[in-house]
Amino acid sequence: MEARLNELKARLAEVYDLEAAARVLDWDQNTYMPPGGGPARARQIATLQRLAHVKFTAAEVGQLLDSLRPCEESLPYEADEASLIRVTRRDYERAVKVPPSFVAQLADHTSNSYQAWTVARPADDFASVRPYLEKTLDLSRQLADFFPGYEHVADPLIGYADYGMTVATIRVLFGQLRERLVPLVQAITAQEPLDDACLRQDFPEAQQLAFGTEVVRRFGYDLARGRQDKTPHPFTTDFSIGDVRITTRVNGRHLGEALFSTMHESGHAMYEQGIRADYEGTPLAAGTSSGVHESQSRLWENVVGRSRNLWQFFYPQLQGTFPGQLGHVPLETFYRAINKVERSLIRTEADEVTYNLHVMLRFELELDLLEGHLAVRDLPEAWRARFQRDMSIAPNDDRDGVLQDVHWYAHTIGGAFQGYTLGNIMSGAFFEAALRAHPEIPDEMAAGEFGTLHSWLKENIYQHGSKYTAAELVERVTGAPLSIEPYVRYLRGKYGELYRL
Amino acid sequence: MEARLNELKARLAEVYDLEAAARVLDWDQNTYMPPGGGPARARQIATLQRLAHVKFTAAEVGQLLDSLRPCEESLPYEADEASLIRVTRRDYERAVKVPPSFVAQLADHTSNSYQAWTVARPADDFASVRPYLEKTLDLSRQLADFFPGYEHVADPLIGYADYGMTVATIRVLFGQLRERLVPLVQAITAQEPLDDACLRQDFPEAQQLAFGTEVVRRFGYDLARGRQDKTPHPFTTDFSIGDVRITTRVNGRHLGEALFSTMHESGHAMYEQGIRADYEGTPLAAGTSSGVHESQSRLWENVVGRSRNLWQFFYPQLQGTFPGQLGHVPLETFYRAINKVERSLIRTEADEVTYNLHVMLRFELELDLLEGHLAVRDLPEAWRARFQRDMSIAPNDDRDGVLQDVHWYAHTIGGAFQGYTLGNIMSGAFFEAALRAHPEIPDEMAAGEFGTLHSWLKENIYQHGSKYTAAELVERVTGAPLSIEPYVRYLRGKYGELYRL
Repeated sequence: MEARLNELKARLAEVYDLEAAARVLDWDQNTYMPPGGGPARARQIATLQRLAHVKFTAAEVGQLLDSLRPCEESLPYEADEASLIRVTRRDYERAVKVPPSFVAQLADHTSNSYQAWTVARPADDFASVRPYLEKTLDLSRQLADFFPGYEHVADPLIGYADYGMTVATIRVLFGQLRERLVPLVQAITAQEPLDDACLRQDFPEAQQLAFGTEVVRRFGYDLARGRQDKTPHPFTTDFSIGDVRITTRVNGRHLGEALFSTMHESGHAMYEQGIRADYEGTPLAAGTSSGVHESQSRLWENVVGRSRNLWQFFYPQLQGTFPGQLGHVPLETFYRAINKVERSLIRTEADEVTYNLHVMLRFELELDLLEGHLAVRDLPEAWRARFQRDMSIAPNDDRDGVLQDVHWYAHTIGGAFQGYTLGNIMSGAFFEAALRAHPEIPDEMAAGEFGTLHSWLKENIYQHGSKYTAAELVERVTGAPLSIEPYVRYLRGKYGELYRL
Repeated sequence: MEARLNELKARLAEVYDLEAAARVLDWDQNTYMPPGGGPARARQIATLQRLAHVKFTAAEVGQLLDSLRPCEESLPYEADEASLIRVTRRDYERAVKVPPSFVAQLADHTSNSYQAWTVARPADDFASVRPYLEKTLDLSRQLADFFPGYEHVADPLIGYADYGMTVATIRVLFGQLRERLVPLVQAITAQEPLDDACLRQDFPEAQQLAFGTEVVRRFGYDLARGRQDKTPHPFTTDFSIGDVRITTRVNGRHLGEALFSTMHESGHAMYEQGIRADYEGTPLAAGTSSGVHESQSRLWENVVGRSRNLWQFFYPQLQGTFPGQLGHVPLETFYRAINKVERSLIRTEADEVTYNLHVMLRFELELDLLEGHLAVRDLPEAWRARFQRDMSIAPNDDRDGVLQDVHWYAHTIGGAFQGYTLGNIMSGAFFEAALRAHPEIPDEMAAGEFGTLHSWLKENIYQHGSKYTAAELVERVTGAPLSIEPYVRYLRGKYGELYRL
């Protein structure tokens, strides 16, 4: 039995290496690759992904998994070996449904589509990416159709990112949340807006980067096993548990962009860095879902990163870094500036309260596209109309509209956005559980110490990688199924105080 | 027939993609990878290389090559299809002779040996690497023995880097060259040495890098299809014909290091960038031999890069970049400084005239080791004795002696050094042929124009990739077999004038 398990692990390590290599090539494409490298790079990434897929879906893997069933059944659910076999089987059964030629076609197409988007967005040229997006929609439907029996065409696509979640379950959660958010946004925006002018000054890029790096280093992001580079769109990627990288973008005229994006990505990265080292090279060595991943990025970016406690410690240092810009700005003014709620155009720059409305809008548009109720050519207009409905404003161009996010241009349509709001909901639930276990966390944050929180998250969430599903993890960590209530309590508490509601 | 050719190309593209991916991972390891990435990265590169080897040596590749023999024979030698089949067969027949287990053993051993060398060199500790080197010597002989029928045990090893060259042919060329170099070095070193103090000042790193980049951009190195980064040891690597990167190291106290290393690597890179785009993804898409590759790096670094003509154009710009350091230094002083000839210990810092003596010494020692006339334990002493004989000086330690070059510690013994001097010899022959075709080249260089030379090299050498062997290429380009005479004429002309011989 041990020999079979070792053979399975050797095969999985090969798959993991090919996938990790594809991610290195993708990271390089986003950071340092010269433009001339594009065409071959698309093909190379496709080759690596195709080989990984072929090797993972080999009949021998299926046979090994079958022969290991008695081993799995003889062990507790939580045992590492049982978990490895269980999670591998789940991934295997999904993977064998999709032909390798389709995987390669999709990878090649999204890589070309991404290249086109990098040109189209600054040029505000939706027309040039429209054919790519139409093809992406077609391929997304084809991908879903490899999983017959779904309730909604988006369900299989959502399943890739948030295993166990469906359009039906998400609609319930999102519906509940919307009901609570809309009056909150209305109550807040009916008042005098907070002033965030202090963030909108000249902040030299190098100092912004250095300060953000120092903050996430204190959070517990290990720079001996990671690094930060600049990209047009921030992301986190991992090549092994010992090499988990983040990227950011810097706005020399707005202090918040790089700072909070760095905190956000560090949350993703600490999750991946915190996985047990002996899971390396197996399907367990990855965050368990998009939602849980976002719960960590949003927890560190917002619940921690925009808290008054944290800035009691960091603000004097920030003032020291930018004395001319912030020396005369009181902490409270800064704290209110970074928590200003307003109806705005850009998701990644949106405040905590309106953010989820941005996500829900995209989720709805995805479903409409997949259901055939909306054509790609009508997407820019639909975007504007929904924005007007939800935010009472709308973008003048597509650059800040339908072209703003990379997701639809680099992945499938469907499955890409729900994780952000699921993550917000979970961040509230996880943080409340952490505070129950360690009521001293807020005081520690005010002293620039994040060790208790980081250790608790590592112990309860990070170390397990993909061993537990998101639903299992939420249940284990919070003692209850996923609920919006802790997150709503968090928002109402924080913004109730800020806006005297 | 076309279907079979397409199947061969598809298989070769897969191999090429795996090898290119391994090079991206290696480049990243040398430039940006955090320390924690090391262990997984070694495994990942090994996985990619192993898969590339397995896929290239698959029986189906051999069968396709057999079935394509009539196609090859029906076409002219120069036809692209015939060349693709011929060159692939040559590589295939070599690759299948070596068992995969031996390839893995050698890769594993040289990787460990390299690690040991990185510690041993700064510690001047030859004893600690001696067992590695003894094993390397043993493995090198074993590798050669997979190619029975060789005339000299080093021939198969040389064949990997410089196909078609043998110990016998190289000994003739090196013997002829030595006969002409020794009196030249004696005549030069009998005179007052040139003064290179102007190069040994403080030169800020960023300006050095920017200036070097501008020089190679003017040479014709296409930065839209390449880039330069910093590494401990400079190198060139290619991920596709559209993405060929160089690296450099900067010495803030010596202007020459980064500048000439950048020119050197740009020569390698322009060769790879100049290969016909439709060779992409095949064995034709690579420089044809180590010697031809070095002919390009050394041509741009020395024949062009250390010429008076070039500096007539660039020196005023260099003075503008470093006014405090060079504003008062006349062009002629600078020109003489960058062409100072002296007996020195370190190959990579040696001048054009003595450089080949460094190479020949290593080549001789390799042959003695492989022939069994020299034991590894006697190598440090043999190094010193030959150095004394050739240079009238000898290193006090092994750090600047037998430990100075990485080659024997990271590759086989045999095959690693001859390319440098073959390249120098070819650079003279190629440049003389270029001048015959375009006598205006020197005047263009003085005007900062390199287009005629670059186009001529691209037309005659670069575009062909590996289509022709080095010997065929030399014959086609110069109209004669490889001869040392053009190179000796070049050296005697330049240094005769500099030293009034």
